[in-house]
Amino acid sequence: MNLPKKVRLVEVGPRDGLQNEKQPIEVADKIRLVDDLSAAGLDYIEVGSFVSPKWVPQMAGSAEVFAGIRQRPGVTYAALAPNLKGFEAALESGVKEVAVFAAASEAFSQRNINCSIKDSLERFVPVLEAARQHQVRVRGYISCVLGCPYDGDVDPRQVAWVARELQQMGCYEVSLGDTIGVGTAGATRRLIEAVASEVPRERLAGHFHDTYGQALANIYASLLEGIAVFDSSVAGLGGCPYAKGATGNVASEDVLYLLNGLEIHTGVDMHALVDAGQRICAVLGKSNGSRAAKALLAKA
Amino acid sequence: MNLPKKVRLVEVGPRDGLQNEKQPIEVADKIRLVDDLSAAGLDYIEVGSFVSPKWVPQMAGSAEVFAGIRQRPGVTYAALAPNLKGFEAALESGVKEVAVFAAASEAFSQRNINCSIKDSLERFVPVLEAARQHQVRVRGYISCVLGCPYDGDVDPRQVAWVARELQQMGCYEVSLGDTIGVGTAGATRRLIEAVASEVPRERLAGHFHDTYGQALANIYASLLEGIAVFDSSVAGLGGCPYAKGATGNVASEDVLYLLNGLEIHTGVDMHALVDAGQRICAVLGKSNGSRAAKALLAKA
Repeated sequence: MNLPKKVRLVEVGPRDGLQNEKQPIEVADKIRLVDDLSAAGLDYIEVGSFVSPKWVPQMAGSAEVFAGIRQRPGVTYAALAPNLKGFEAALESGVKEVAVFAAASEAFSQRNINCSIKDSLERFVPVLEAARQHQVRVRGYISCVLGCPYDGDVDPRQVAWVARELQQMGCYEVSLGDTIGVGTAGATRRLIEAVASEVPRERLAGHFHDTYGQALANIYASLLEGIAVFDSSVAGLGGCPYAKGATGNVASEDVLYLLNGLEIHTGVDMHALVDAGQRICAVLGKSNGSRAAKALLAKA
Repeated sequence: MNLPKKVRLVEVGPRDGLQNEKQPIEVADKIRLVDDLSAAGLDYIEVGSFVSPKWVPQMAGSAEVFAGIRQRPGVTYAALAPNLKGFEAALESGVKEVAVFAAASEAFSQRNINCSIKDSLERFVPVLEAARQHQVRVRGYISCVLGCPYDGDVDPRQVAWVARELQQMGCYEVSLGDTIGVGTAGATRRLIEAVASEVPRERLAGHFHDTYGQALANIYASLLEGIAVFDSSVAGLGGCPYAKGATGNVASEDVLYLLNGLEIHTGVDMHALVDAGQRICAVLGKSNGSRAAKALLAKA
């Protein structure tokens, strides 16, 4: 049982989280959220998305957000850039790291990005090439790694294939997303073993949703498999578009509570993180989705 | 990694759960809940408590509940009986299995049951003797095994000592309770290792609260340590008296979802369990505390 000594938390609340909240939020509130998160010690924040606002209206204004945040040294401020047009817009905003996203399930790929997995991967090639020229790092996401809302089970070998493709085209890290939160700890371990046969563990990240309450058990299972990077969302921002009213992204506070308990270093301050989550929840008029945050606030 | 093939779920919703809900509930609703739970395949249900209603008004009427439920063969219907008076009342109700509860923390013992741990253990001796005479099995609970609301940290050796005492006086099983939900996976494993040096693992059960969102990770850690009995509460009934508004008992549905995913047999039907939880939540006028239940209902 060799748990990693250090874990990097990738904070996806401002992008993946807010994108899945119902109401649009002001640019100033997004800027405040990002600045709160960097002040809490998070050194990797996914700030926004350079996609057409026609598809994702919540992500309009990502350029303004990038222009308005206080960029702290040592912090990576990343953005989604699924195509060359998005990449160029990100570049204009001074973005130093972007992410592309593929699916592990054909049905999800077709319904979500309107093309086959293979076609989606081919579309990333020019993004990766342009990124190389501009010394921008690219992270790859894979969705539906433990199940698909349309296809059900997903073969871990299919995930391994997509992960290898992303790595081969230049992604420095591949984040494995349980988009609908259906995975459990055993499936998580089997998935990581399968993917690790194609991509080294130190280049893999876990992205778990807490829809069925399994996220922390899956993260613990991943830690036991040597994974040391996890995506999470402050206050559990972002619901689950595939199960109305259900929980989406695992809350950063809950992950941090686990990691603190395991004495794994993250550099993140719990108190400041809980404050950041409370502030954005007040803006959104919703209750905090983090159990750890709620318990800490109830005790205070 | 040898996970158990079979797990026994001890359903504590009707007792531990309802006891910590604010409003009193009708005897008929309690009976319906217990019958729903046994129909769902749970073969161990903690039905009520034979303590003074002065202390725990929600448990008034436990005798009526025992008289009213439909006792299915093969199902254990248990009750708390902390002293000889309670034990005799339980016996009159035909109870075949009772539970006693001690704390692992001195401060908690003093504040919760008004005596030292040692004194509380001595009070159980006549209960255990009477139980032996009447061939009633006794289960022991230990609270605050991973932390105390008054004392903070709790030494695993202290838990091991209390567990050994309970076993030596005749408890056939000892349930280790993280009463305030502060434990994380590493501490859980260290605790089980410490206690297992005094009491065999097959005589230990895990009782986790989800206050900080850690319960399922702790259960998974316990499974990896060879624990095969877990207490849980349908719909997560029962809040946390030490953090207002926070989560208490881990929800049975969430635990079952994990175990189903790990292909560990329980004999419990998820669908019927979710229905049982929804029905009692409607009675209580509260939303379901199980993430798995909420996701399954949202999908349906």
